[in-house]
Amino acid sequence: MLEKIDLSKTMDKPEFKTRMRELDAKLGRLQRLCKEKQIPVIIVFEGYGAAGKGTMINRLIEPLDPRGFKVYTTQQQTEEEKYYPFLWRFWNMMPGKGRISILDRSWYRILLNDRFDGKTSDKSLATAVDEINSFEELLTDDHIVLIKFFLAISQKEQKKRFKKLADSKETAWRVTEDDLKRCKHYDEYSRLVEEALEKTDRDNAPWTIIEAENREFAAAKIAQSVVDRLEEALEDAEKREQEPKVSPEESAQIHTDTFRASALAGVDLTKSLEKDEYQKKLKELQKKLSKLHGELYLRRIPVILAFEGWDAGGKGGAIKRLTQALDPRGYEVHPVASPNDLEKSHHYLWRFWTAVPKAGHIAIFDRSWYGRVMVERLEGFCTENEWRRAYKEMNHMEESWVNSGAIVLKFWMHIDKDEQERRFKERQENPDKQWKITDEDWRNRAKWDQYEVAVDEMLVRTSTTYAPWIIVEANSKYYARIKVLQTVIDAIESRLKDNE
Amino acid sequence: MLEKIDLSKTMDKPEFKTRMRELDAKLGRLQRLCKEKQIPVIIVFEGYGAAGKGTMINRLIEPLDPRGFKVYTTQQQTEEEKYYPFLWRFWNMMPGKGRISILDRSWYRILLNDRFDGKTSDKSLATAVDEINSFEELLTDDHIVLIKFFLAISQKEQKKRFKKLADSKETAWRVTEDDLKRCKHYDEYSRLVEEALEKTDRDNAPWTIIEAENREFAAAKIAQSVVDRLEEALEDAEKREQEPKVSPEESAQIHTDTFRASALAGVDLTKSLEKDEYQKKLKELQKKLSKLHGELYLRRIPVILAFEGWDAGGKGGAIKRLTQALDPRGYEVHPVASPNDLEKSHHYLWRFWTAVPKAGHIAIFDRSWYGRVMVERLEGFCTENEWRRAYKEMNHMEESWVNSGAIVLKFWMHIDKDEQERRFKERQENPDKQWKITDEDWRNRAKWDQYEVAVDEMLVRTSTTYAPWIIVEANSKYYARIKVLQTVIDAIESRLKDNE
Repeated sequence: MLEKIDLSKTMDKPEFKTRMRELDAKLGRLQRLCKEKQIPVIIVFEGYGAAGKGTMINRLIEPLDPRGFKVYTTQQQTEEEKYYPFLWRFWNMMPGKGRISILDRSWYRILLNDRFDGKTSDKSLATAVDEINSFEELLTDDHIVLIKFFLAISQKEQKKRFKKLADSKETAWRVTEDDLKRCKHYDEYSRLVEEALEKTDRDNAPWTIIEAENREFAAAKIAQSVVDRLEEALEDAEKREQEPKVSPEESAQIHTDTFRASALAGVDLTKSLEKDEYQKKLKELQKKLSKLHGELYLRRIPVILAFEGWDAGGKGGAIKRLTQALDPRGYEVHPVASPNDLEKSHHYLWRFWTAVPKAGHIAIFDRSWYGRVMVERLEGFCTENEWRRAYKEMNHMEESWVNSGAIVLKFWMHIDKDEQERRFKERQENPDKQWKITDEDWRNRAKWDQYEVAVDEMLVRTSTTYAPWIIVEANSKYYARIKVLQTVIDAIESRLKDNE
Repeated sequence: MLEKIDLSKTMDKPEFKTRMRELDAKLGRLQRLCKEKQIPVIIVFEGYGAAGKGTMINRLIEPLDPRGFKVYTTQQQTEEEKYYPFLWRFWNMMPGKGRISILDRSWYRILLNDRFDGKTSDKSLATAVDEINSFEELLTDDHIVLIKFFLAISQKEQKKRFKKLADSKETAWRVTEDDLKRCKHYDEYSRLVEEALEKTDRDNAPWTIIEAENREFAAAKIAQSVVDRLEEALEDAEKREQEPKVSPEESAQIHTDTFRASALAGVDLTKSLEKDEYQKKLKELQKKLSKLHGELYLRRIPVILAFEGWDAGGKGGAIKRLTQALDPRGYEVHPVASPNDLEKSHHYLWRFWTAVPKAGHIAIFDRSWYGRVMVERLEGFCTENEWRRAYKEMNHMEESWVNSGAIVLKFWMHIDKDEQERRFKERQENPDKQWKITDEDWRNRAKWDQYEVAVDEMLVRTSTTYAPWIIVEANSKYYARIKVLQTVIDAIESRLKDNE
């Protein structure tokens, strides 16, 4: 993409002034409209060293309301960031609805400088490209505007700029050894750039190359590109508003087809365990898990456990039997309820990404991201299109976590309708347990059959080799708790063995 | 507090079992009640090395719902944390309403291990004690329950425990050189402990010493103390609910007393600046500020600027003239509106503490924490007691920031009533500015005289030597913008000179 480009394009100052007056006015107005329409915008600046990213960002934001954007600089990962999956820190930079995030360098570092420095192996390159493309697709599918600039200058121009910076006492500190190395091996570095751009230039997230030798030309082209993309996004948003409303029933698409695949149909709910046996095993397994938790910490392996299941299916009890065995400084339980203001203003996966555990820690989710394809699907909280693509999005998310070294397990706590009724009634009669049961539980119960269709589809579509679903036969609480403990222990032991 | 204590107290196992059964049931129930009543709880564990903090925390949380608490471990500051004020990372651990934060070590590190290691000088000791006491008072004034445990064992017992840990391959890594050093100099370390406890044992936040040689005795005493404190907190909450409601007018306490001190009365609003002069100065000052921003970054000095003022007083315009001169990677503008869910669930200062800039960065607040003593006071969003103590709390907060090396400036953008009317009307007539004016602006304008009383009191009570208010004569936008720029530049230059 770079080879054929004439980097020396220029624009004279009078033309620049005229154009920018117009573009600045448009940008100010577009920012307000995007805020009104609640459109989030991400603008990524990549480019050669000394290509002028800082200056260009400064010029771009001049007409913008500073309360509506934030500029992030991406340096090398800090020690702390290394304990998280690669994309975690970028999820923390994502704009809320109606806001703009401007990134001075971004996730592309892994394909550019890190690769040049030999930190990204050829083997991990393909994975990184996959993760980036999936990530960007997930953003643009959610109608987040993603604008990517690559600022290009020639080796000659780069040398000249570095020299000028180095010659002044005030700016010399900005030129690093690494900068000079990349400048010296400009052709080699350019090949990596070329490859990175080609692999990640896609319809939903195209690259705009900025010929950056002449600052006026570059600044005007950037402003014009942002104007074009925002105008387009506003038109799209308007079109979406005009689309006919679909009823929750229709968007949920629940069909009880004879031939539909079912993961739940064959589950043997008669499995059970006697109290004596339970207590013996519980003690033994908790002791084992406790020891393994220390190992996980020392080897810096993160663990992510998601619990889903029928109301009163015993999620809380199973989680408790796990946490009793864990060092409280090394785990966190995330109760997942309907999203708060801040969460609502972001992508639905944002609150889970930002809650990812640090390497060596355990995160337990009591309900999870799978709400998207259950309650949100059934109640019409999201569109058919949204829940349909969620399977893929959730698989990608879990794959990213596994790529970063995490163990990911998902438990479906399965009981039958009679057992649920029995437990609901027991809760209502016990003053210490009444708080556990609400009208909503009874309302959900009335939709059991519809939920069953959604759950079956979820289990089939999202049980993967890297992040399997475990259906837990939970009519017997004793049996269920032991199965959960045993599964977690097996997964950790098998990982520790692999790592040896 | 430690000297006279018999550390070898014991409890036999049958008694322990009976007591804990009862205490565990109470703790489960109390946690639910605190959640219902929205009471936040902080439990701090401090103590000698190997006194069993981890074990005790584990035992305490056994009966608790894991979705309602979080355990935080406080190690030495990470590199990242060093760029923030001392209390910043603890603000990030604060529980929301109805939640429990359990801290395995805490802000006391600065008075204990850091002091033992010579990192806390005698000079900074007094400041640290002040900051801690003010911080704890701020928490308990807001009815956050603060429970502080110090786990004590004798030198003999400590030696025995370290030896046992070191002898096992699995636990040897937990005993550090520093641990052994503190054990060897037990008496010296104990003197520091004694002093820290004495200086911070106050009615609102008392220490509970736990005799920790016998684990049963220690665990039971901890559980009993937590039960007592939570029961007390619930009683207090009930009493507060029964207090008679006060009208917003009464709680606002606006009196136009002839003798009241006024900061605004003498302000000369005729000050102005010609356009030519403005443009010349603007260019010159922005160039200067731009250069100083780089200096700030290199010397790692954080800057916090708060903008308050009458509606249409020109906050936005003044902020823009600042940010135009700044590197966008080094500042952030925080627009402050009414708090969101998450912010409402915390102390009113939480959202400002957590937004403190990293050393070397600039945070600009468009409206600020001072809303507490203006809109919240006038509209009855907080009680009389709450806004009255807010002056002190905000002064303390700013002092903490200044202690950590920050420059803190607060601008009051002052215009008169006629000028405001003129600007409101101009905004209404200009299609590009209509979005800036709402019905609320007119409603606030109707309360001008009441606001004036509140603003005067605020300016008088919270303009300090370390964090002064600057009243900006803003009838002339040109004059105002230049004054803001010049003030910021003067403050930075004066600091850079001090540091030389």
